[in-house]
Amino acid sequence: MGYAPGGSGGGEAVETALIAVDWGTSNFRAYDVDATGAIRDRRAAPQGILQVPDGAFADAFADLVGDWLEAAPDAPVVMSGMIGSRSGWSEAAYAACPADAAALAQSLHPVPFGARTLSIVPGLSTVGPSGVHDVIRGEETQIFGALGDTAGRTAVCLPGTHAKWADVADGRVTGFRTAMTGEVFAVMAEHSILGRTMAGPEAPADAAAFARGLARADEAGGLLHHAFGVRAEALFDALKPAAARSYLSGLLIGHELGGMADILAAVPEVTVIGADALSALYVEALAGRGVATRRVAGDTAVVDGLVRVARLARLLKDAP
Amino acid sequence: MGYAPGGSGGGEAVETALIAVDWGTSNFRAYDVDATGAIRDRRAAPQGILQVPDGAFADAFADLVGDWLEAAPDAPVVMSGMIGSRSGWSEAAYAACPADAAALAQSLHPVPFGARTLSIVPGLSTVGPSGVHDVIRGEETQIFGALGDTAGRTAVCLPGTHAKWADVADGRVTGFRTAMTGEVFAVMAEHSILGRTMAGPEAPADAAAFARGLARADEAGGLLHHAFGVRAEALFDALKPAAARSYLSGLLIGHELGGMADILAAVPEVTVIGADALSALYVEALAGRGVATRRVAGDTAVVDGLVRVARLARLLKDAP
Repeated sequence: MGYAPGGSGGGEAVETALIAVDWGTSNFRAYDVDATGAIRDRRAAPQGILQVPDGAFADAFADLVGDWLEAAPDAPVVMSGMIGSRSGWSEAAYAACPADAAALAQSLHPVPFGARTLSIVPGLSTVGPSGVHDVIRGEETQIFGALGDTAGRTAVCLPGTHAKWADVADGRVTGFRTAMTGEVFAVMAEHSILGRTMAGPEAPADAAAFARGLARADEAGGLLHHAFGVRAEALFDALKPAAARSYLSGLLIGHELGGMADILAAVPEVTVIGADALSALYVEALAGRGVATRRVAGDTAVVDGLVRVARLARLLKDAP
Repeated sequence: MGYAPGGSGGGEAVETALIAVDWGTSNFRAYDVDATGAIRDRRAAPQGILQVPDGAFADAFADLVGDWLEAAPDAPVVMSGMIGSRSGWSEAAYAACPADAAALAQSLHPVPFGARTLSIVPGLSTVGPSGVHDVIRGEETQIFGALGDTAGRTAVCLPGTHAKWADVADGRVTGFRTAMTGEVFAVMAEHSILGRTMAGPEAPADAAAFARGLARADEAGGLLHHAFGVRAEALFDALKPAAARSYLSGLLIGHELGGMADILAAVPEVTVIGADALSALYVEALAGRGVATRRVAGDTAVVDGLVRVARLARLLKDAP
């Protein structure tokens, strides 16, 4: 955001200038934004694209923010996230890397909605050095929101079910990698033998066990071997069920970072975007490798990214 | 085995001298062995320890090989596998590494059974350089069966749900590592997003896709990133559902071998013990790293191992 709206009362700055929407797999989040990029109002619902029946996205959208749309009939609507996937409202083709925020603005995907045309921000695709593809949908908006016009080379990490690591040069995403860290944690905890000696998600985080897992990830043997240690240590009572979740989390995040060693060696700092608790674990793990970090909250990054793309697309005036 | 029994008809060599039992999690396998170590008869049933209700192992054993026991009332019975675990008939404490076949023979765990005393071969435990435990139960018998008295340093690989890698010096297991390769494959295929673009287990093996997965495992990014490639490549139609299983298998086996790089660099050869199809994949993967291999069938290794331990325990006379 440029800055918070000054004072209260009338004036253009406090009217709705953009309806910014982050519509993901599990959640819907909308922001009523003024011309300065400040949030006037926000709304969230557990109405991710998987929860919308029979592709009735237009109905769901009207239910969720119909009053906003009516109150600001001329405000543009820009959306990012899985809403633009094959399983979403309308498929927005991926923009290919390298790509900057202007490239997204030029590739907005139009969706007719009554008298309006809504815009979906495309995801990004990349092809690694050996020809393997990777994709992002939603995080690209957060990356451009969090980075602004940062010059030079930097990296962005978005932890989660499918963690994303973007390599950025002069405001342009040159490539990225997805790591299935969160999903592997979940399937191993729920469906593998490791779950038998592991307390449930209600167990409090154990900082010492997390640090042990991180350290273990740097030793010989590889992830497939280290993971079995969760079981073997439990057999010898060397890892308590309440500590096992944090240990496995440390193991996986440690291996994720190990896989990004080439990126980490090339950048002065990593911007970590996400929720507090998970971001804190990544900041700790990166600090252990001597990597400087900067944190940006996930919703701040989304709104700033949508505002930035909307400005570049001339849907929203430049900040006053 | 020393050698096959000579000729047909009478003589001590063709009488039952040992009942050798491999009783695992999912399967029961028994071998009627003569004094030379040759198999006279064999029997298998899907009666692993998880299939025996209410700990009724004595009843199950009598049902499965009662006629053999009656026909050879003096023959010793030696068993290996999960039957000696906490969930089995009677818990046999792990023998600590370094350990040789004689150490197992000295630590046989007695189980009363009518007028007999059965013997369970203990598993092995090890503690890695950083203090992390690991355990084996069943594979130790195969290792000693397959190696015999091999001098010098060598390694043994037993692929499977929990693959085992043993480091061996002059017939003594100095340490080992378990890799959850088979189990991670199963939970990822069944419970993660990767399964959505993957054909079922009935899909024929795809050698080219397996080789692609192996090669990918050696690139930057790490396993957690490489695994997501199964999904991303499918989105771009660069990996067909029928090929995805072999690709994931190559990825995982490649990463497993990457984790064993220090062991592989230290030995002239790896003995691969197991079933044909899976062993062949490991032999191919190891050849790709320039590692010489020797293959031993799983049942041959079990019987030879049980015979060897029985001889060292003086339950069976030395080979004539």
